[in-house]
Amino acid sequence: GFGKVDYARESRNGFPEVIFGQGKSSEQVGAIFERLYRQHGKAMVTRADQAMAESVRGVVPEAVFEPVSRLLTAGCCDRHFVGKVAVLSAGTADLSVAEEAAQTAEWMGNEVERIYDVGVAGLDRLLAQRERIREASVLIVVAGMEGALASVIGGLVRRPVIAVPTSVGYGAHFSGLTPLLSMLTSCAAGVTVVNIDNGFGAAYAASIIQQAIREGAK
Amino acid sequence: GFGKVDYARESRNGFPEVIFGQGKSSEQVGAIFERLYRQHGKAMVTRADQAMAESVRGVVPEAVFEPVSRLLTAGCCDRHFVGKVAVLSAGTADLSVAEEAAQTAEWMGNEVERIYDVGVAGLDRLLAQRERIREASVLIVVAGMEGALASVIGGLVRRPVIAVPTSVGYGAHFSGLTPLLSMLTSCAAGVTVVNIDNGFGAAYAASIIQQAIREGAK
Amino acid sequence: GFGKVDYARESRNGFPEVIFGQGKSSEQVGAIFERLYRQHGKAMVTRADQAMAESVRGVVPEAVFEPVSRLLTAGCCDRHFVGKVAVLSAGTADLSVAEEAAQTAEWMGNEVERIYDVGVAGLDRLLAQRERIREASVLIVVAGMEGALASVIGGLVRRPVIAVPTSVGYGAHFSGLTPLLSMLTSCAAGVTVVNIDNGFGAAYAASIIQQAIREGAK
Amino acid sequence: GFGKVDYARESRNGFPEVIFGQGKSSEQVGAIFERLYRQHGKAMVTRADQAMAESVRGVVPEAVFEPVSRLLTAGCCDRHFVGKVAVLSAGTADLSVAEEAAQTAEWMGNEVERIYDVGVAGLDRLLAQRERIREASVLIVVAGMEGALASVIGGLVRRPVIAVPTSVGYGAHFSGLTPLLSMLTSCAAGVTVVNIDNGFGAAYAASIIQQAIREGAK
Amino acid sequence: GFGKVDYARESRNGFPEVIFGQGKSSEQVGAIFERLYRQHGKAMVTRADQAMAESVRGVVPEAVFEPVSRLLTAGCCDRHFVGKVAVLSAGTADLSVAEEAAQTAEWMGNEVERIYDVGVAGLDRLLAQRERIREASVLIVVAGMEGALASVIGGLVRRPVIAVPTSVGYGAHFSGLTPLLSMLTSCAAGVTVVNIDNGFGAAYAASIIQQAIREGAK
Amino acid sequence: GFGKVDYARESRNGFPEVIFGQGKSSEQVGAIFERLYRQHGKAMVTRADQAMAESVRGVVPEAVFEPVSRLLTAGCCDRHFVGKVAVLSAGTADLSVAEEAAQTAEWMGNEVERIYDVGVAGLDRLLAQRERIREASVLIVVAGMEGALASVIGGLVRRPVIAVPTSVGYGAHFSGLTPLLSMLTSCAAGVTVVNIDNGFGAAYAASIIQQAIREGAK
Amino acid sequence: GFGKVDYARESRNGFPEVIFGQGKSSEQVGAIFERLYRQHGKAMVTRADQAMAESVRGVVPEAVFEPVSRLLTAGCCDRHFVGKVAVLSAGTADLSVAEEAAQTAEWMGNEVERIYDVGVAGLDRLLAQRERIREASVLIVVAGMEGALASVIGGLVRRPVIAVPTSVGYGAHFSGLTPLLSMLTSCAAGVTVVNIDNGFGAAYAASIIQQAIREGAK
Amino acid sequence: GFGKVDYARESRNGFPEVIFGQGKSSEQVGAIFERLYRQHGKAMVTRADQAMAESVRGVVPEAVFEPVSRLLTAGCCDRHFVGKVAVLSAGTADLSVAEEAAQTAEWMGNEVERIYDVGVAGLDRLLAQRERIREASVLIVVAGMEGALASVIGGLVRRPVIAVPTSVGYGAHFSGLTPLLSMLTSCAAGVTVVNIDNGFGAAYAASIIQQAIREGAK
Ligand SMILES: Nc1ncnc2c1ncn2[C@@H]1O[C@H](COP(=O)(O)O)[C@@H](O)[C@H]1O
Ligand SMILES: Nc1ncnc2c1ncn2[C@@H]1O[C@H](COP(=O)(O)O)[C@@H](O)[C@H]1O
Ligand SMILES: Nc1ncnc2c1ncn2[C@@H]1O[C@H](COP(=O)(O)O)[C@@H](O)[C@H]1O
Ligand SMILES: Nc1ncnc2c1ncn2[C@@H]1O[C@H](COP(=O)(O)O)[C@@H](O)[C@H]1O
Ligand SMILES: [Mg+2]
Ligand SMILES: [Mg+2]
Ligand SMILES: [Mg+2]
Ligand SMILES: [Mg+2]
Ligand SMILES: [Mg+2]
Ligand SMILES: [Mg+2]
Ligand SMILES: [Mg+2]
Ligand SMILES: [Mg+2]
Repeated sequence: GFGKVDYARESRNGFPEVIFGQGKSSEQVGAIFERLYRQHGKAMVTRADQAMAESVRGVVPEAVFEPVSRLLTAGCCDRHFVGKVAVLSAGTADLSVAEEAAQTAEWMGNEVERIYDVGVAGLDRLLAQRERIREASVLIVVAGMEGALASVIGGLVRRPVIAVPTSVGYGAHFSGLTPLLSMLTSCAAGVTVVNIDNGFGAAYAASIIQQAIREGAK
Repeated sequence: GFGKVDYARESRNGFPEVIFGQGKSSEQVGAIFERLYRQHGKAMVTRADQAMAESVRGVVPEAVFEPVSRLLTAGCCDRHFVGKVAVLSAGTADLSVAEEAAQTAEWMGNEVERIYDVGVAGLDRLLAQRERIREASVLIVVAGMEGALASVIGGLVRRPVIAVPTSVGYGAHFSGLTPLLSMLTSCAAGVTVVNIDNGFGAAYAASIIQQAIREGAK
Repeated sequence: GFGKVDYARESRNGFPEVIFGQGKSSEQVGAIFERLYRQHGKAMVTRADQAMAESVRGVVPEAVFEPVSRLLTAGCCDRHFVGKVAVLSAGTADLSVAEEAAQTAEWMGNEVERIYDVGVAGLDRLLAQRERIREASVLIVVAGMEGALASVIGGLVRRPVIAVPTSVGYGAHFSGLTPLLSMLTSCAAGVTVVNIDNGFGAAYAASIIQQAIREGAK
Repeated sequence: GFGKVDYARESRNGFPEVIFGQGKSSEQVGAIFERLYRQHGKAMVTRADQAMAESVRGVVPEAVFEPVSRLLTAGCCDRHFVGKVAVLSAGTADLSVAEEAAQTAEWMGNEVERIYDVGVAGLDRLLAQRERIREASVLIVVAGMEGALASVIGGLVRRPVIAVPTSVGYGAHFSGLTPLLSMLTSCAAGVTVVNIDNGFGAAYAASIIQQAIREGAK
Repeated sequence: GFGKVDYARESRNGFPEVIFGQGKSSEQVGAIFERLYRQHGKAMVTRADQAMAESVRGVVPEAVFEPVSRLLTAGCCDRHFVGKVAVLSAGTADLSVAEEAAQTAEWMGNEVERIYDVGVAGLDRLLAQRERIREASVLIVVAGMEGALASVIGGLVRRPVIAVPTSVGYGAHFSGLTPLLSMLTSCAAGVTVVNIDNGFGAAYAASIIQQAIREGAK
Repeated sequence: GFGKVDYARESRNGFPEVIFGQGKSSEQVGAIFERLYRQHGKAMVTRADQAMAESVRGVVPEAVFEPVSRLLTAGCCDRHFVGKVAVLSAGTADLSVAEEAAQTAEWMGNEVERIYDVGVAGLDRLLAQRERIREASVLIVVAGMEGALASVIGGLVRRPVIAVPTSVGYGAHFSGLTPLLSMLTSCAAGVTVVNIDNGFGAAYAASIIQQAIREGAK
Repeated sequence: GFGKVDYARESRNGFPEVIFGQGKSSEQVGAIFERLYRQHGKAMVTRADQAMAESVRGVVPEAVFEPVSRLLTAGCCDRHFVGKVAVLSAGTADLSVAEEAAQTAEWMGNEVERIYDVGVAGLDRLLAQRERIREASVLIVVAGMEGALASVIGGLVRRPVIAVPTSVGYGAHFSGLTPLLSMLTSCAAGVTVVNIDNGFGAAYAASIIQQAIREGAK
Repeated sequence: GFGKVDYARESRNGFPEVIFGQGKSSEQVGAIFERLYRQHGKAMVTRADQAMAESVRGVVPEAVFEPVSRLLTAGCCDRHFVGKVAVLSAGTADLSVAEEAAQTAEWMGNEVERIYDVGVAGLDRLLAQRERIREASVLIVVAGMEGALASVIGGLVRRPVIAVPTSVGYGAHFSGLTPLLSMLTSCAAGVTVVNIDNGFGAAYAASIIQQAIREGAK
């Protein structure tokens, strides 16, 4: 076959391999999904589409496709972490990436607090959420435009902040390059960054931190 | 000679030509300065250095060089505008550009309010200045790093905000490209932007707005 | 719901929030539009399309969609500013962005003077408009290609010039990057710049200046 | 004065403000250092140089300058976290950034495990360290060239991996842009990234994670 | 006619001209294919599509189109080289480029060993192939994401490694720019690189090396 | 109306204004075409399409559309220059741009020599054309890929060489950026360059040179 | 020796090889200069420095070094062309490149008209030169900043315009990239462009055009 | 110590580790050199300088520093390969990189044929070397400017061509980016590319090919 599934990933990393849908045919996705699901009792595809969903449901009928987040999942996720992952977004246009982050985090066992549309141009909206923001164990900040929200949040909390730039914008936004660079040069120390639109990666990193919190310092 | 001084600029634009020092020899700067000073009773060089200062003082002894802002000026500026120009900066590293803006604005006839080191990672410091910020007629926001300050200020005021990205930084900051792009894609409507490190240009634009306010709608 | 409308923006900034249509679903646009319209008696969507127009008219039947400017508006705008906003464009291909600027300015209460197709390759056409150009209170210069028009206008007037690069072009134009950079490095002092194709932002900035002129120096 | 020190940062974030040395004069650094040290009993400057060290020692004689990491510190850091922070580097040329990360982490209260010169071109050297790698609570991977080490480490552990690209290289390395982009598109899920050469930021993020581990899920 | 076929290429280089399909009309491809096939008894089109296949089969009915690799070929290729060309790929998404390389290599007379889906995030999968990897005469490494596989393979073998970055990815991947730069700055000495998605070019270079091995040192 | 036609261009420059079709509606193109045709007895649109052709033929029935070059023309061009313009292209994929150059040159009054598919990888094909190349008064070199043809031709002739990079390619070709930069840094002195795919501009510049030759030195 | 001088260039191109000084040692420059001078009775080095001048004068004592243009020449140039080459510059900072162009053109046999400091921000200064501008046989436009001068000149004349972007500037000027792109996308048809700071290349191209004018259409 | 020397590299790859001098202190280079020399009886540093040479000679007195190539070596290299490696360069300015390639190749056991200053602007100089070019087993093409030489050579031979772009140039050359991209998009099939200025890497790759030729197909 074309693919070598990395079954050992769960024991090495704590979580099984997740399928990256983009650039794969529906048949390939279906076949890999089935193998992962048989092995681990759960499986997930990111950047999926309707055709992949149908291919997968041919072999794993309980699989569910969520069009906003473009996640295709089966099996799941007892809630196994105590603290919350907060997912913040700057505007409505970032919804798709924010949901990819939020739903991935849920699927990986986190309780998720959604705090959306709190862009810095209306600072009072954001400050009204100060308490909810401070209660999270890990924070994921999803923002397009200039990505300023990550710096502002980074300055407010004593917990890890993972920034996700998004690709919705135009002109000097360069499909997310601008918030990416902006987040990398944030004036708030300790903000770390994942790839443009990579809500999945942010949620994965957040879950790894949650895992470290739960298992304590070795 | 090598240069044609644009004497008509003051009548066309309201302000005389200003000399761009970079890339010129001290002799050239001295000669152009003298001609402008004779014509207008005042003259200014941006991006000047000590050698230019000496060359200019050979012909216009009252010329003054300010090493932080790198401005070299003679003659001046009755205070002729009523409102204030606020110059805000995110951090101490932006001081040089902020001072180029502030001193240019003063030289062009503005009262200047300096509000420095109010970067968004310490939001309370910034909010403590809310009143002073709202009182300005025009605001110049000078910021390096990710330039988020421009968006936050843009969301707080009903007056023009001119953003100046600065070149101090490293890595993904790309000598100011990042705050430049960030300011251009600001989520706060109506923020306009000038070139990286162009404190002069921001102050010039602010003065043109002040001139429009003073002369009223034609 | 998914969005937090920033109702306080009108009191903070002088103008209510405007909806950025790109990347939102028609349902989202309809719902936000309704809430803004109920609150302020007027609302606007930029980068709208026909489907959004239909969704909005389901809740606000008097909403009007303008396909050239892609603006969707309801309610409006007593003319409340005295001076004129001039919108200049270099060529016919910039029409859509120029109209976004012109119609936004009108919706925000300005009288607009349209001076189109006056690119610098035919300088006499431009010079023939010299009087109309000098009469404006604020000038918006919309240009693709190399964006040279902004520098030429900047050299002719004693009023604020806001430059808008446009994305129509090819090759080394890089979808508007070239006129953007060109306008940022203009040899005419005091030109400020907004994002590529951001006619809305230029008109918003112009209106804020008009507001400053009307309210005088505080 | 020129700067507003953010004294409240320690209570908000858990750690006091750290001074970014680049672009500041020795006098500015000395003055800010003194104020921070008086307030918190400790202070740190990154990207410092010998002249800053002298200026600081004039006011805080116990301050220590480390030329490899370019850190200037006074006061410190009881070891207050249980687990270890591992700092890995790909080659000898990354030493300076790796030490900035390691010494910052130590100053912030971590025990640090240094695992240097384990680039992927000699895989067996790296695999020989597999146990030490798995024992860390948080991992910082410092790499120049193509930055491949981050992906390999990310695939081996169940703990957070923070990647730091470095600027030593030439040609298509573009002063660290290449490992930066490489780390952002890592095939190992959950790797997060900080700015080029930002060893400090990685150690800060690691310490924030350590703080979350120690304080548990709220 | 529009095209000058380079019939002498086979005698100069050892292999006949191959048609680059992209940007040509089906009619052009058909006409050039026919001339090459008449001259050499074999012909190949890269980046072909179904319409080109039909046009070519009108004149050379035995031509075969392979949709995954997008190769369109007729005639062939006695196996004339002794050693094997190994084609390695990091993930399933690189399949199309890997097959372009593999099938081109076969068409040019090589035995091909396909070692797919051995990305570095699951290092044990890769190490399990160590023997097969060491047996190849030439190795082609096809990888998207951050392209780290090339460095790891380069460190394991004493044979030429040709790296092919692929364009499948998103965000900071920049359509293959990231693995391209990454492979060019590989920490494994002696890795050489071809253009993004250029499986054909890699296989051609591998065959030229095979030709050098077979013909020995002159 | 929306457009100001620059009727004086013919007297200023020697040739009338030409319409840039891209980004204009068919109605706009039709209206401008009609005005130019009435004034000058000839008109041309570049980057036209079938819909524009129909719109134009509604008002100027004799207008002709050429789909390969995407030129839409009416009226013409006595042959008024003596020497020939040679148009060289490196490969078949450059045909569309080469024809835009060749047909524009013919429309502007030149005899055109087409020398196509003479890329440098088959040097003998090119050298076989050495005489025809040396006979031209002006040479236009159209090349995609790495654009090496411009340098080779520049080294062979004593007449002006105008280089046109083309956008057909993939990967590191960056839609023509690579041959553009390559031609700008040509090791053959005196090669000048126009924008990517700008066959029109090259032919216009060639005609201006022809005009200078015909009118002699003033 | 290390270099193969291309003695045949004069017969092929009309002008002998010129030495590119940058990156060569003084010894290399001296040796190549001597050989060229012996062969052609004249020689020139571009981008020379004082050390090269001394090395050359050791072997060719009559060689002259001009520090502004950085040209090092010996022998010369009867005036052999009839028309004039006009060299225009936008500002004083472009003087060095403008002089490289002007002196190269003189060395190659042209009468040169210098029209300096006529940037578009002071349009009347430029229009005052309209007659001198129209009299030239070929025009070289040297401009930094946004490079708008090339478009304005291109719209005024019926003779070839060669644009030279310069590297003096800062920020979004990107060492000349901005005027380069700007000139390539000029709205004035027929402007051709050479590399940033390549005054030599522009003068060479102008001389080739002059040669074509003198020798007439073949 | 700070470094882990990869002693096993010789058995894995056929050649011992080579020290990358840039970014290392003289002390570090001296210490690593000594360990490698003791182990293998030979050692090499690339991008070395005089200070490193002195440090190394303190421990390995027979070490030799070559300032043009910046190579520092001890021990060596019986000639163990039969065929020749040809190193071609386009101009004198590429000498340093060409010598890095040539001397590395010699140190690794190759006979080297130097064919310098054969840039494509003087094609006859190049064609005069056609026989020597065809006799090489592997060809290394070193070129700055637009890098066209690689394509021309690639079209002439039946042996592997490794292209090395160089960083000497200015403006649109972007320190070697232009020849790099140019070589990656070469119209000659089978050219492979190494990093800008990486003469070492090209010679290493050539030696690996020579090793494959000598050991034959396994
Ligand atoms: N720091 C600066 N940044 C941008 N433009 C400037 C600066 N200083 C002066 N200028 C403008 O540059 C022009 C003068 O250029 P020059 O003739 O070279 O001195 C004038 O239009 C000034 O308004
Ligand atoms: N075309 C536009 N370009 C830039 N900003 C806009 C545009 N249209 C609306 N905005 C701004 O976008 C914000 C609304 O974003 P959202 O909440 O996503 O609708 C407000 O700050 C608006 O002022
Ligand atoms: N300033 C310059 N910019 C671009 N090309 C130049 C320059 N000076 C000389 N040349 C060209 O560089 C080539 C000589 O290169 P070289 O053999 O390295 O001296 C000749 O073709 C010259 O025409
Ligand atoms: N000039 C060079 N360019 C690229 N790689 C090099 C160079 N010189 C040495 N290397 C490689 O760099 C690695 C050694 O790096 P380091 O451990 O930092 O000395 C080895 O894999 C060498 O083969
Ligand atoms: Mg909103
Ligand atoms: Mg501060
Ligand atoms: Mg027009
Ligand atoms: Mg090492
Ligand atoms: Mg896989
Ligand atoms: Mg062909
Ligand atoms: Mg001037
Ligand atoms: Mg030479």
